[in-house]
Amino acid sequence: MDKQAITRLLEQVASGEVPVEDAVLRLKMQPIQEVDEYAKVDMHRGLRQGVPEVIYGAGKTKEHILGIAKAMLANGQETVLVTRIDAQTAAFLASELPIRYQELAQAGVIGQMPEPSGKGKVVVATGGTSDIPVAEEAAVTAEALGNEVVRLYDVGVSGIHRLLSHIEEIMSARVIVAVAGMEGALPSVIGGLADCPVIAVPTSVGYGASLGGVAALLSMLNSCASGVSVVNIDNGFGAGYMASMINHLD
Amino acid sequence: MDKQAITRLLEQVASGEVPVEDAVLRLKMQPIQEVDEYAKVDMHRGLRQGVPEVIYGAGKTKEHILGIAKAMLANGQETVLVTRIDAQTAAFLASELPIRYQELAQAGVIGQMPEPSGKGKVVVATGGTSDIPVAEEAAVTAEALGNEVVRLYDVGVSGIHRLLSHIEEIMSARVIVAVAGMEGALPSVIGGLADCPVIAVPTSVGYGASLGGVAALLSMLNSCASGVSVVNIDNGFGAGYMASMINHLD
Amino acid sequence: MDKQAITRLLEQVASGEVPVEDAVLRLKMQPIQEVDEYAKVDMHRGLRQGVPEVIYGAGKTKEHILGIAKAMLANGQETVLVTRIDAQTAAFLASELPIRYQELAQAGVIGQMPEPSGKGKVVVATGGTSDIPVAEEAAVTAEALGNEVVRLYDVGVSGIHRLLSHIEEIMSARVIVAVAGMEGALPSVIGGLADCPVIAVPTSVGYGASLGGVAALLSMLNSCASGVSVVNIDNGFGAGYMASMINHLD
Amino acid sequence: MDKQAITRLLEQVASGEVPVEDAVLRLKMQPIQEVDEYAKVDMHRGLRQGVPEVIYGAGKTKEHILGIAKAMLANGQETVLVTRIDAQTAAFLASELPIRYQELAQAGVIGQMPEPSGKGKVVVATGGTSDIPVAEEAAVTAEALGNEVVRLYDVGVSGIHRLLSHIEEIMSARVIVAVAGMEGALPSVIGGLADCPVIAVPTSVGYGASLGGVAALLSMLNSCASGVSVVNIDNGFGAGYMASMINHLD
Amino acid sequence: MDKQAITRLLEQVASGEVPVEDAVLRLKMQPIQEVDEYAKVDMHRGLRQGVPEVIYGAGKTKEHILGIAKAMLANGQETVLVTRIDAQTAAFLASELPIRYQELAQAGVIGQMPEPSGKGKVVVATGGTSDIPVAEEAAVTAEALGNEVVRLYDVGVSGIHRLLSHIEEIMSARVIVAVAGMEGALPSVIGGLADCPVIAVPTSVGYGASLGGVAALLSMLNSCASGVSVVNIDNGFGAGYMASMINHLD
Amino acid sequence: MDKQAITRLLEQVASGEVPVEDAVLRLKMQPIQEVDEYAKVDMHRGLRQGVPEVIYGAGKTKEHILGIAKAMLANGQETVLVTRIDAQTAAFLASELPIRYQELAQAGVIGQMPEPSGKGKVVVATGGTSDIPVAEEAAVTAEALGNEVVRLYDVGVSGIHRLLSHIEEIMSARVIVAVAGMEGALPSVIGGLADCPVIAVPTSVGYGASLGGVAALLSMLNSCASGVSVVNIDNGFGAGYMASMINHLD
Amino acid sequence: MDKQAITRLLEQVASGEVPVEDAVLRLKMQPIQEVDEYAKVDMHRGLRQGVPEVIYGAGKTKEHILGIAKAMLANGQETVLVTRIDAQTAAFLASELPIRYQELAQAGVIGQMPEPSGKGKVVVATGGTSDIPVAEEAAVTAEALGNEVVRLYDVGVSGIHRLLSHIEEIMSARVIVAVAGMEGALPSVIGGLADCPVIAVPTSVGYGASLGGVAALLSMLNSCASGVSVVNIDNGFGAGYMASMINHLD
Amino acid sequence: MDKQAITRLLEQVASGEVPVEDAVLRLKMQPIQEVDEYAKVDMHRGLRQGVPEVIYGAGKTKEHILGIAKAMLANGQETVLVTRIDAQTAAFLASELPIRYQELAQAGVIGQMPEPSGKGKVVVATGGTSDIPVAEEAAVTAEALGNEVVRLYDVGVSGIHRLLSHIEEIMSARVIVAVAGMEGALPSVIGGLADCPVIAVPTSVGYGASLGGVAALLSMLNSCASGVSVVNIDNGFGAGYMASMINHLD
Repeated sequence: MDKQAITRLLEQVASGEVPVEDAVLRLKMQPIQEVDEYAKVDMHRGLRQGVPEVIYGAGKTKEHILGIAKAMLANGQETVLVTRIDAQTAAFLASELPIRYQELAQAGVIGQMPEPSGKGKVVVATGGTSDIPVAEEAAVTAEALGNEVVRLYDVGVSGIHRLLSHIEEIMSARVIVAVAGMEGALPSVIGGLADCPVIAVPTSVGYGASLGGVAALLSMLNSCASGVSVVNIDNGFGAGYMASMINHLD
Repeated sequence: MDKQAITRLLEQVASGEVPVEDAVLRLKMQPIQEVDEYAKVDMHRGLRQGVPEVIYGAGKTKEHILGIAKAMLANGQETVLVTRIDAQTAAFLASELPIRYQELAQAGVIGQMPEPSGKGKVVVATGGTSDIPVAEEAAVTAEALGNEVVRLYDVGVSGIHRLLSHIEEIMSARVIVAVAGMEGALPSVIGGLADCPVIAVPTSVGYGASLGGVAALLSMLNSCASGVSVVNIDNGFGAGYMASMINHLD
Repeated sequence: MDKQAITRLLEQVASGEVPVEDAVLRLKMQPIQEVDEYAKVDMHRGLRQGVPEVIYGAGKTKEHILGIAKAMLANGQETVLVTRIDAQTAAFLASELPIRYQELAQAGVIGQMPEPSGKGKVVVATGGTSDIPVAEEAAVTAEALGNEVVRLYDVGVSGIHRLLSHIEEIMSARVIVAVAGMEGALPSVIGGLADCPVIAVPTSVGYGASLGGVAALLSMLNSCASGVSVVNIDNGFGAGYMASMINHLD
Repeated sequence: MDKQAITRLLEQVASGEVPVEDAVLRLKMQPIQEVDEYAKVDMHRGLRQGVPEVIYGAGKTKEHILGIAKAMLANGQETVLVTRIDAQTAAFLASELPIRYQELAQAGVIGQMPEPSGKGKVVVATGGTSDIPVAEEAAVTAEALGNEVVRLYDVGVSGIHRLLSHIEEIMSARVIVAVAGMEGALPSVIGGLADCPVIAVPTSVGYGASLGGVAALLSMLNSCASGVSVVNIDNGFGAGYMASMINHLD
Repeated sequence: MDKQAITRLLEQVASGEVPVEDAVLRLKMQPIQEVDEYAKVDMHRGLRQGVPEVIYGAGKTKEHILGIAKAMLANGQETVLVTRIDAQTAAFLASELPIRYQELAQAGVIGQMPEPSGKGKVVVATGGTSDIPVAEEAAVTAEALGNEVVRLYDVGVSGIHRLLSHIEEIMSARVIVAVAGMEGALPSVIGGLADCPVIAVPTSVGYGASLGGVAALLSMLNSCASGVSVVNIDNGFGAGYMASMINHLD
Repeated sequence: MDKQAITRLLEQVASGEVPVEDAVLRLKMQPIQEVDEYAKVDMHRGLRQGVPEVIYGAGKTKEHILGIAKAMLANGQETVLVTRIDAQTAAFLASELPIRYQELAQAGVIGQMPEPSGKGKVVVATGGTSDIPVAEEAAVTAEALGNEVVRLYDVGVSGIHRLLSHIEEIMSARVIVAVAGMEGALPSVIGGLADCPVIAVPTSVGYGASLGGVAALLSMLNSCASGVSVVNIDNGFGAGYMASMINHLD
Repeated sequence: MDKQAITRLLEQVASGEVPVEDAVLRLKMQPIQEVDEYAKVDMHRGLRQGVPEVIYGAGKTKEHILGIAKAMLANGQETVLVTRIDAQTAAFLASELPIRYQELAQAGVIGQMPEPSGKGKVVVATGGTSDIPVAEEAAVTAEALGNEVVRLYDVGVSGIHRLLSHIEEIMSARVIVAVAGMEGALPSVIGGLADCPVIAVPTSVGYGASLGGVAALLSMLNSCASGVSVVNIDNGFGAGYMASMINHLD
Repeated sequence: MDKQAITRLLEQVASGEVPVEDAVLRLKMQPIQEVDEYAKVDMHRGLRQGVPEVIYGAGKTKEHILGIAKAMLANGQETVLVTRIDAQTAAFLASELPIRYQELAQAGVIGQMPEPSGKGKVVVATGGTSDIPVAEEAAVTAEALGNEVVRLYDVGVSGIHRLLSHIEEIMSARVIVAVAGMEGALPSVIGGLADCPVIAVPTSVGYGASLGGVAALLSMLNSCASGVSVVNIDNGFGAGYMASMINHLD
C-alpha cells in the first residue's frame, strides 16, 4: 500500500467521507481474501488485467486447489496457473474447470491463455534431456504470464558444438533461463555468450556427488560469467516468473 | 560470434577480399587480447561505447591490475571498474591513472564516470549496517555501469517499520538489490512488496550457524516470494552488474 | 530429588523410622515405573495434578503405546497426550480407551481435556498452508497441557499484509509459536513485532536447497530479532510444550 | 503499531486535530530515529521505562557505537548495553560515557544498572570453563535487563556429581540458560531435572568434529528433554535476552 | 602371517621339506578360501577354537549367505553369526541349517552358542526405546562371541534418575556399549560414571536436525568424558565385536 | 573442429567449391543429429571405426532409448552400449534390436561386440561383494569399448592378504579401476603397489556415516598414493571409459 | 558413588556416627573440589594410587593451569599430565613445578613418571610424518598413565611394505592406536592384521577435500575391519587414555 | 614384490645361496630406507633410471627435507622434486644442494632436469589467472618427471572464444590437466572437445559458496563429459604425476 493510497484514505477520513472504523478495516484487510480457513489469497496483483494468479499445487489437496482456483476466477482472474500437480489432480480440476494440463511440466493453465505481451523472447535452454521437465515448468510459466518462449534443449557444454549452433537464438533473447543438473556449467557458458540476463536453474538430475542438485547449485552460484543469477534447485516456476518480470519491463 | 559475422567473413573469403590465412586468424583470435602472459582480456563487450570493462582485483598483483587497466584504456575504454582492491592498491594505481576509490566498497573507477543511462532506478537495500560494504560494491558497480542508485540501508525485517517507511522507493524501483546476512529474510519481504525483479545478495555477516553466509544464501534460495533470484555470498559486483543489465533493457 | 527430600529421608534413617535397605531403594528407584521390559515411565511430573503425561508415538508399536497409556492412567493421570500416531493406531487405541484423535496433527488426547490454566494466550502462526500439520501438533500439545490457543495460519512474510492484519493477536499473545518452512523468515518478522517470547519451529516444507528444513532452521537460528529461540525441524510438540511451560509461569 | 494507535490517529485526523500530512509522517516515521546515515535506531521498545536498548558492537566502528549510544541516552534511555566490544573500544567509550565493562563477557553497560525486576532467578550454567565467556555474555545481558542471575559454571555432564550437587539452584530457577560446547549435552540433563524453561546455548568450544559448535548445536536441537529451545552458537546475548523476557512475564 | 611362520616355511624350503612352488602358493593363498566366485572368506581367525566367523548379510542374496555359511561350517566353525538379515532370509537359512534368529536384532546364530568366555560382563545401554534394535545387534553379537551381556534399556539422560538407579551395573561392567540417537549424550554421562572403556554407538533414531544420526555421532565424538570411543551410526555389530575383543583380553 | 578442417573448408569456399550458405551450415550443424525433438546425438566420435556410441539410460523412456539406438545404428555404428537400464527396458529393446544385457551391470550392448584393441589389460578390483554391480558397469563398459578386462573382486584392505595374493595381476595391468565403498581405502593401497594409473570409483555401499558414498569419495580424493584420480560415486561407466581411453593411447 | 558407599553412609547416619547435616554435605560435595571460582576438579579418580589426573590446557590461562595443578598435587596426586600447552606455558609452569615438557606432543608431565603398570604394550602407529604430533600426544598420555609404548611412525598404506615389515610389533600389541590424516586408511589395514582392539585417530593433516580431518574421520568410522573404534579428530589424548584403560584391564 | 622375486628368493634359500635369516630380512626390509627416525623412504620406484623421487614439503621442517633429499641422492636418484615449499626453505636447501626453485609453483627440482621422455605433450590449462599457481605445480611436476608441457592459461568457459582459439593444442595433447576454481566447468568443456584423458583439478580460488573449492570439486565429479577424472582440491602435484604416468605408457 503506497503513500498515495494512505494519503487519499486519510483525506477521506479527514473529510468525513470514510468513517474511522472503515478506514482501519481497509488499512488492514483489503488485499487479502480468505478461502474457507485453509488459505489467504493475495488479490493485490491479480486485480491488474492479464496477469494470472498462480497456485503452487505441491502439498495442497485437490479440493483445496479447486476451491482457490474458483475464488480467483470469481474475483475476475482470466488465467490461473497451477504448478506441481499430477495428471490425476489435473483430471479432477478438469471436471469442473477448463484446464490445459502439460504433463511434462506437471502444470496446467485454467482459463484463457494470454497473448504474448513481453518485450522480447524468453529462451529456455537445458544441458540434457533429463532437465526438460524443469525447463518445461519454466516455459509453461512464462507462456502463462504472456511471453513468447524459445526452447533449446539438450545443448550441454560437454558437446559445445550443440550450443554454438544455436548462437543466434541466444544472441537474440531478451532473457534466458538456463537449466542444468550434474555439473551445472551451462549458465556460465551461455552467460559468456549472451548480452542479456541469465536466470540459472540447477536441477536435481544426477547421482552420487550431485547431492540432489547441490553440486549444480554451487556451480551456478560461483559462475565466472557476469549477468547470471540463480533460483532454487528444480525451481522452474521461479525462473519463468523472474524471466517474465524482466521481459515485461518497459 | 554470430551467424551474420561468420557469413560476412566467408563471403569476403569467397570474393577474395580476405585471404584464407587471415580468416582463420580472425575466426580464432579476434575478441581476445593477451596482456603479457598473465591475462587474456575479452575486448568484445568493451568495444561498445560507454560500457566499462571490469577488473576483478582479488588474487591479482597491483602491477597486473595496472597493466590490464592500461591495455583497456589503450583499447578505447572510457571507464574501467576495479573491484576487490584495498586502499594501498588504489593508491598505487592512482599514481599513474585517474581513479576514484571508494573504500567502503573496496572498489574504484578509473576514467570517466558514465552518465546514468538506465531506464529507471536501481534500489540497493541492506538488512543491517554490517551489510553495507557488500551493498556499496553493488551500488558502485551499478553507478559505474550507468545507473542511478537509491540506497536504503539498515532496513532489516526484525523492525519491519523501517522497511515499510520506505515503501515508495521500493514501489518505484525498476530493479532492487537486496543485501542481507544472518537470516537473509530481506529479499523475501521486499519481493512480496515490490513489482520488479529482486536480486538477492547473501552476506557473510553473522557468526556461528550463519556458516559464513550459507544460512542467508539458503534462506534466499528458498524465498517464498516470486521474482527473486540469488547471487553468490558477498557478490555485490554480480548483483550490481545483473541489476544494470536489467535496468538497461529497452 | 532435592535437598529437602534427601535431608528428610536421612533424618528418618537416623531416627530409625526408615530402614537403611528401604532408603537405598527409595533413593534409587522412586520416580521410575517400568512398563514390562520396554519402557521406564517417569511418573515424577505426572503426579502433580492436571499436567498430562506425554507419549511420543513414533517408533513404538501400538501395543506398547496402549500399555504405557494404561499404566499412566492407572497411576492417576487424567490426561495422556499421544503424538506422532497415524489414524490406524488411533483407532486401535480407541477400541480400549477414550481418545480424541486429530488427524492433521497426528496426535490424540486420551482422557479428560484440561481447562485452560495458562496466564495468557498461546499464538501459533504459520508461514504457509503446508506448515499447518506441524503447527497443529504444537497447538494440540498446548491445548492438552491447558492453554488457550489462537491460530494464525498462512501469514508468511512474502505477503506482509497478511501478517500485519493480525497485529492485534500478535501484540496480545503471552508466547508465540512461529512455524515456517522454506526460508523460515516468519519468526524474525514476528519477533520484531511482538513483545513476548517467540518459539521458532522450522518445518521440512520445501524442496531442493531447503535441505529437508535445514535452510529454515539456519535462518531461524540466525534471526536478527531478539527474543527468538528455536526447536528441531518439525518439532511442533517441543514448541507447544515450551510455550505451555512459559505460559504457566506465575 | 497496534490497532488502538491507528484508530486514535485516524480519529485525530477526522477531527482535524492532526493534519493529513503529519499523520502520514507519523504512520511511517515515528518509531525510527536515524543516527547520521549509518543506523536507524528503533526507539519503540526503549521508550518504556527501565528496559535498556542494546547495541550489537561487532562490525561497528567505535565512533558509530559512541554515536548510537549518545542518541539513545539523549532519547531518554537510562541504560545502554553494548555487546561484542573489546577492551580498547570500551576504553574509547569510557572517555565520554560512564561504562562498566566486563572483559570476560566482552560487554559493557552504559548508564544506570537497573534493579532486578524479574519474577524469579535466572540460572546460567556451563559445561566447562571454556564456555564461561559466552555464559557471561548471557549473564551480563540478563543483569542489564533487570534480572538476578545465579552462575553455575563447570558442571558438565561427564562428571554428573558436579551438576547434581547444585540441584537446588536448578529446581528454584524461573528460567535456565544452559551453555555448552563439545557434545552439548548439558541442556538435556538440566532439562530433565528442571521444571522451568531451558534456553540452550551451543558454544564454539572444541576442535575437530565439533565443527565450530555445530556438533553442540545439533545435539541441543535433538534434545530428548522437553522444555528446551536453542539459540545460535555463542549467542549469549540472545539467550540472556530471551531469559529476561520470560522472567519478566507477569 | 607373522615372522615365525615365514621363518619356519623358509627353513622347510631350505631343508627341502617343502618345494619352492608349494611355498609360493602357501605364502599367497593360505588364509583365503574362495566361495564360488562371489566371496573370499578369510579362514584365518576362524581356525582358532570357539571364535565364530561372521557374515554381514546386507546386500547379499540369501543363496550367497547360505553358501558362505556352509563353507564356514565345513571348515570347522562351530558358530556362525549372521547380521542384517530379515525374517524371510532367516527362514530360508533355517530350512537347511540350525539357526536361532532374533528379529529385533535382525541377526541369527547358526550352530552352537558358545559359553561365556570373557573376563567380565558387557553392559549394553540405550537412551530410548527406539534404540533397542541397534543395541540388540550389539548384544547378540557379544553373546555369539562368548560374552555375558547385561541390558540397560531406556535410561536416557533427560531422566537422569533412570540411569543413576543402575549405577551398580555400570560400575561393575568390564566394558560398556552405550547406544543413543537424537542428542547422543548417554556415552558422555556413562563415561563420567564408569571406570571401564565405553563404546559409543550413535543411532539414526530421530528426525529433522538429527540428520540420520549425524547429530548423535558428532555429539559422541566430542564427548567431554575420557575413555569413550565411537563406531559408525547404527553399527551395533561393530560395538559388540569391539566390546568382546576388550572383554577377552587376558 | 580443428584448424585443418576450418582451413580446408575456407579454401573450398574461396575456390567456389562450397557455397557460402553450405559452409555456414556445415560449420554449425555437422556433428549433431537431432532425434525427433528429444535428443541431439553427437555423431562426431562415433564415426570412427569400432568405437561404440553410448546411451546413458537413466531418466530416459524406453521408447527414447530405442529411437536413439536406431539412429546410431542407422548412422553406421556397429556397437551401442546402453547403461543404467533395468531388465524390463532391456527386454523391450531386445524385441527390436540384438542386445546382450548384463543384469548385474544394469547395462547392455547392442550390435557387434568389438575385439579387444587396447594396448594392455584393464584390471577392475573391488573392496567387497556389494561393490560388484558398479565394478561390472566399469568392466562391461571397458569390454564394449574394446578392452580385455581382468576382474579382482572382494579384495578389500581389511584382509590385506586377499589383495597381496593377486599382486601379479596388479603389477601387469596397464590401467586399474579400483572400486570401493565404506572407507574407500582400496585405491590407496593399490596405488602404492601398482606402477600404472589407477581410476578410483567410490560406491554408495555402506550406511550411516558413509553418507551415500561421500565418505569413500573423500577418502579417495585424499589418497596418499600418487597416480590415483577419482570419478563420481557409483560411476562405473566413467571409470571404464577413462580406463579404455588410457588403454588405447599409442 | 556406588551402592556400597551409599549404604555405608546411611548406616553411619542410622548409628549416629555421622550427623545428618554432614551426610547431606558428603552426598553432594565429596568428589568435587573447587579451585577458586574457575574450576571444579573431580578428585574421585585421582585418589586411587598411581593414576594421574589430567589438565586439558587449551583455553585455560597459564595461571589457572598452575593453580589447578597445585591443587591436584596438594591433594596427593603424584603425577599430573597437562595437554595442549605450548612451550611458553610449559616454561611458566616449570618455574614453580617439576615438569617434563615434550614439545612435539605439546604436553607435559608434572611430578613423578609412573612405572609401566599395563598388561601389555600399546602400539602407536602413524600414516605419515605429519601425523606424529597427534601420535605423540597419545604416546605421552599413555606413558603418563603407566603404559609401555611402541612407536611405529610413517607406515601409511600407500607403501604397504612399510607396514608389513612391522607385522611383529602389530601382532604382539595389546592395544593399538592408529593415527592418520588424509584418507585415513591405516586403521582399516591394521585392524585386518591385528587381533587386538584398534583405536583410530583421524588427524587434520591434509588439504582441500580432507576438510580439516573430516575425510579421515568418515573413513575410519566406515572401516570394513572389525575391532576398530574412533575418537575425535586430532584427539591423541583421548586415544591414549582409552588405550591405557584397555591395557590396564585385569 | 612380485611372484618372480619371491620364487627366486626361495630358490636361493633352497639352494643354500641365501641363509634363512637374510631371506626373512629381505622379504621384510628391502624397499624401505629409514632416514633417522623421522621418515621411511620408499626407494622402490626411485631405483629405476630417470624417475625422480618426490618430497611433499608441507608439514616437514627444512632440516628434514634436506635430510631426505640427501638420502635420495646418495641412493642414486638424479632428480628430486620438492613440492609445497616456500622461498625461504628453498634458499635453505640451495645452500647445500643444487635446486631450481619456481616460486609460483612453490616447488623446486634438485639435481638434473630429465629430458622429456613421454610419448606426447601434456597440456595444462586454467580457467583464470588465479588458478595459475596450482597449474604451475602440475606443470613443474610433469616436467620434473620427463614431460613436455604446453601451458594454456586463463581460458575459462565464460569467454568460450578464449578456449576455442586454442583448439589445436587441445586436439594434439596426449593428456590434459584442466585446472579451475569457482564453478569448475573447464574440464567438462575440454572433455567434450578433446579425445584424450583429462585430469581435472579443482582449486580453492573463489569465495562464499565456493566453499574453499568444494563447489569446483563437485562440479568436476559430476562432469557430463566422458574421459574426465578428478584429484583433490589444489592438488597440482597429483594431476601432474597422473598425467606423466599416462604420458609414459607404451
